[in-house]
Amino acid sequence: MNEFDFIATYLKPLAGKEALGLKDDAAIIPAANGMEYVITKDALIEGVHFLPNTNPADLAYKIMGVNLSDIAAMGATPRYYLCAACLNDAVDEKWLAAFTAALGEIQKKYGIVLLGGDTTRHKGALTFSITMMGEVPAGKALLRSGAQVGDEVWISGIIGEAADFTSARYLRPEPRIALGLALRDIASAAVDISDGLVADIGHIAAASNAKITLQAEAIPIAKLPLEKAITAGDDYELAFTAAPDKVEAIAKLGFVTRIGRVSAGAGVEVLGANNQPITLAKKGYTHF
Amino acid sequence: MNEFDFIATYLKPLAGKEALGLKDDAAIIPAANGMEYVITKDALIEGVHFLPNTNPADLAYKIMGVNLSDIAAMGATPRYYLCAACLNDAVDEKWLAAFTAALGEIQKKYGIVLLGGDTTRHKGALTFSITMMGEVPAGKALLRSGAQVGDEVWISGIIGEAADFTSARYLRPEPRIALGLALRDIASAAVDISDGLVADIGHIAAASNAKITLQAEAIPIAKLPLEKAITAGDDYELAFTAAPDKVEAIAKLGFVTRIGRVSAGAGVEVLGANNQPITLAKKGYTHF
Repeated sequence: MNEFDFIATYLKPLAGKEALGLKDDAAIIPAANGMEYVITKDALIEGVHFLPNTNPADLAYKIMGVNLSDIAAMGATPRYYLCAACLNDAVDEKWLAAFTAALGEIQKKYGIVLLGGDTTRHKGALTFSITMMGEVPAGKALLRSGAQVGDEVWISGIIGEAADFTSARYLRPEPRIALGLALRDIASAAVDISDGLVADIGHIAAASNAKITLQAEAIPIAKLPLEKAITAGDDYELAFTAAPDKVEAIAKLGFVTRIGRVSAGAGVEVLGANNQPITLAKKGYTHF
Repeated sequence: MNEFDFIATYLKPLAGKEALGLKDDAAIIPAANGMEYVITKDALIEGVHFLPNTNPADLAYKIMGVNLSDIAAMGATPRYYLCAACLNDAVDEKWLAAFTAALGEIQKKYGIVLLGGDTTRHKGALTFSITMMGEVPAGKALLRSGAQVGDEVWISGIIGEAADFTSARYLRPEPRIALGLALRDIASAAVDISDGLVADIGHIAAASNAKITLQAEAIPIAKLPLEKAITAGDDYELAFTAAPDKVEAIAKLGFVTRIGRVSAGAGVEVLGANNQPITLAKKGYTHF
């Protein structure tokens, strides 16, 4: 049973309508003054989601970045977080000082504050769980489910740079908060690239009941084989869909590239230079 | 460096005002329609917070109960939760079916829904992190900081029953939600008993800048030595303070017992039958 079957069979029946079918980057609940909160929670384990002996400041940027990226993908402004940490004997006071100093830098950069959490010591791997909350005007959150037939597909930045685990891009992902905010009135759907471009664009296709076709040669990739770049994950760029008449507004957003289109059907297809579909050995990272 | 020094030195500077100085059971943020959300997050690790090979249904009741108890202590109505789970090879589909079925029962019992989360597999101990949210009319949440000199101290239920790790009380804690709601207009401060009666009442004393004196013979304890009962933890009863004129309202709340009083000063003192202070070897469970 894979991760997605498990979610569909056992978790979806538990989810409230606020959870958007567990198909999106975050859930949406009412907030004060005509706003909504978006709320997401990701766990990160040493040796699974980050390398053993990652330095504490990089680790803080990593665990916060991946959660902030979900807030960015919803077009929300980050506000609050909670942190549960299971520490072990490798963590001394110097480590804690560096880790929390980096959290302080991140809070300042993104305008967020700590609400609470829990710190425990155990004998196992370092494990963190972050709950991140953002705020968005009611009804304005970007969902994965809004892509329309005829929309164009766009991506920010360069894909595959994080495939090098020593790269700054891997160590300290940069959540595209400003881009997410700018996309509120432009994009029909959005997702952040955490599991790999093809896998995450597949989430838009599935949630929107549509097919997405990507043109391989249009995708801005790092110096890597195409297949590795578009399935490697950890980019934390935003992929989004928008109506063709949004092209001028999108041109003002900075480094974004048009890489495909939405049509009737299902799934994601990647076309090579000859317009023939490219067969991928795997589509992205799975956690389960 | 102990848990509380760590929080004070490294985490408190990161906390927003919504976090109430990280001294309470949960943080408070604005919600819609004149309400506030209370939000808390606790991690639970196999071998630290629950016994290895706990059956999956009991485990669901445990991890949800301890988080719901924080919502109860704030006088809030439970609403939403997120769950991050790090599973391992001991977890098969039968286990998952039983675990999620129990979550479904708990959701129904407490009127809550799942908002999202994250499921990962690793080689280490089963680890869960629950983020629990409740709702309360703005300004009505019960805080640890409201105890006044002259208030009386009360406790629900019997203390120490969870010291037996095979007891229903330990396996499936019963969060005192209804009591918490009833206390909104009665109590001046409240806390749930997770780390041990003396330790948790110490949190009220510290947050309220007051001294609390308990009468040992008044404390309703299980068949255990006094010291074990009042330091063992995992009771998930509510301790609260209230003005003496609330005694009639409190009498209507069911099984609650008056066990002490609030005076000027600091810390918690437990007096024996001869009114002499009892010296405790340890005050409660520490996580760090």
